[in-house]
Amino acid sequence: MKIHRVGFQGERGAFHEQAAAKLVRQPFETVPFPTFPELFRALARGKIDYAVAAIENTLAGSIHENYDLLLKHRLPILAETNVRIVHNLIAAKGVSLRSVRKVYSMPIAHRQCTVFLEKHRSWEVVPYYDTAGSVKMLTEKKVTDSAAIASAVAAEHYGGHILAKDIGDDPENYTRFFLLGRKLEHKPKPRGVKTSLVFITRNIPGALFRCLSAFALRDIDLTKIESRPLRGRPWEYLFYLDFLGNPKDVAARNAIRNLAESTEFLRILGCYPAVE
Amino acid sequence: MKIHRVGFQGERGAFHEQAAAKLVRQPFETVPFPTFPELFRALARGKIDYAVAAIENTLAGSIHENYDLLLKHRLPILAETNVRIVHNLIAAKGVSLRSVRKVYSMPIAHRQCTVFLEKHRSWEVVPYYDTAGSVKMLTEKKVTDSAAIASAVAAEHYGGHILAKDIGDDPENYTRFFLLGRKLEHKPKPRGVKTSLVFITRNIPGALFRCLSAFALRDIDLTKIESRPLRGRPWEYLFYLDFLGNPKDVAARNAIRNLAESTEFLRILGCYPAVE
Repeated sequence: MKIHRVGFQGERGAFHEQAAAKLVRQPFETVPFPTFPELFRALARGKIDYAVAAIENTLAGSIHENYDLLLKHRLPILAETNVRIVHNLIAAKGVSLRSVRKVYSMPIAHRQCTVFLEKHRSWEVVPYYDTAGSVKMLTEKKVTDSAAIASAVAAEHYGGHILAKDIGDDPENYTRFFLLGRKLEHKPKPRGVKTSLVFITRNIPGALFRCLSAFALRDIDLTKIESRPLRGRPWEYLFYLDFLGNPKDVAARNAIRNLAESTEFLRILGCYPAVE
Repeated sequence: MKIHRVGFQGERGAFHEQAAAKLVRQPFETVPFPTFPELFRALARGKIDYAVAAIENTLAGSIHENYDLLLKHRLPILAETNVRIVHNLIAAKGVSLRSVRKVYSMPIAHRQCTVFLEKHRSWEVVPYYDTAGSVKMLTEKKVTDSAAIASAVAAEHYGGHILAKDIGDDPENYTRFFLLGRKLEHKPKPRGVKTSLVFITRNIPGALFRCLSAFALRDIDLTKIESRPLRGRPWEYLFYLDFLGNPKDVAARNAIRNLAESTEFLRILGCYPAVE
C-alpha cells in the first residue's frame, strides 16, 4: 500500500502537522519544509504527494504569502479544515517557571499571548522562525533559562515540559488549513461543497458589484472575500473569493460564467467539501 | 507660532518621516515611537498633535495592525499620501561591499530585495525592528562587517555610506500613509474627496452585495475594499472600504444611509483630499 508523502511548513509538532492528521484519510508520512515557497515548489515538482498550508487565522487574518503562492502555482485545493490553536509555555525538562528569562516563538504567537506575557514583563521576547522549532531548539540544547510558546504536540514530540497551559489571549483562535494536491482528484457531492477562486475585475465602474451580483442574484452564499494588491499595478487589486457551491451544478456554473464577463482574469483554485 | 508635534513609528530617517514632510503643511517637529500601538495611544492622549501611519504597500498589501488600531481609537484620517519606497544598502563610513557579511533590516525590506540578496548568498540576513534603526545601530557602533537596508534619508541622517542604490526587486513599490488627528478639522472641497469607513454586514444572504449596491447604484467609485476577521466571531469579517465622495454631498450621504440598512456596525474613519 502506498504511503503518501504530505509536506508541511515548520518543524515536527507544528500546528500544520495536526491539520495534516485531520485532512488526510490515507496512510501518510509528513515531510517538513523550512518555508512555504519551498513547500509549494516541492509539490509542484512532485517530490511530495500533498501539501498542507495555513491560509487564514481567526485573529491574525489571511496568510497572504500563501494566497500569492496559490496564484503562482497551479496546485488545486482538495480539502479544508480548522484547527484550534492552543498556545502553551514549554521548556526543557527540569526547567521551572521561576528560572525563565527568555521566551522564544514566532512573533505571531507572541502577539496572541500578550495578557500572559504582560504578567512576566521581565522576560525577554525572542522571535524565532517556528513555534515547534523553538521547542526543538530548547530541548536539544537543554537550555535552562528559556521557554517556548508552541503546541502540546510539540512538547510531547521533543520531550518538553509544559509550564503553563492555554496561555493565548483569545479562546476563539482557529487556523484554517488547505490540503493541496497536484491534480484534481476528489469528486465532492453536490451538497456542502465550497469553491475558491481568484479574479481581477475589469477596470469599469462598479466592477466588484457586478462580480458579486453573479452570486447574489442566484442566492449563492459567499463565505469570504479578500483583496490583494496587484504586483506592478499600484492601487489595483485582485480578489480571492470562497462560495458555497459546486461548479458542476447549474447555478454555480452560470454564476462563474457571469463572473467571467466582468473580470479580466479568473481562475478556480479548488472545489472541496465545506467544513464550516 | 505653534510647532506641531507629529508622531511616527520607527527611528528618525524612516519612510514615515518622509511621509510626514508630504502630509503636514504647517511647521512641525517629528516624534518617533517604537511601535504603532504606542503611537496611536500618544495621539489619543494628546501627547502629540498628529500621527503618520502607513496603511498599505503596493507589494505587501495592507498593514492590518493599523487598520485594527484605527478601529480601536477614534482618531480621524485627515489626509493621505503615497511615498515611493527606495531601498538602499547602507553601511558605516569606511565599510566596503566586500567586507559585508550580515544585512540588517525589517523582514519586509529583506523580502522586497530578494534578487539583490540572491547575488550575495553568503550574507547572513538579520531581522531588525526598523529599517532606519538598523542604519543607526551600525553607524553608532561603527560595525565593520555589516550593512543595512533602508532609505537614503536614513543614510544621510546617521552619516552612513550607500554601498548600493535602489536594490528593491520591483520599482512599483509605494506605501500609502494616513495623517491622523485628534478631531476633524479639514474642510475638503466637494471634488476630489475620499472617504474611508468600516462596517460589519448583517448576517443575511447577499449582505456584502447589498452593501456595495449602495455605492454602485449611485455611480460612486470604490477605490479599495478589504476584509478583516472579527475577533471572537470566527469566520466572520468586517470590511474596510474607501470611496471617492464626500458625505456632505447628497449622493454619498444617501449611499451611507443606505449602507447602514445592511450593516450591524458602521463608522466613518475619515474624509480627506484624494491623492491617487
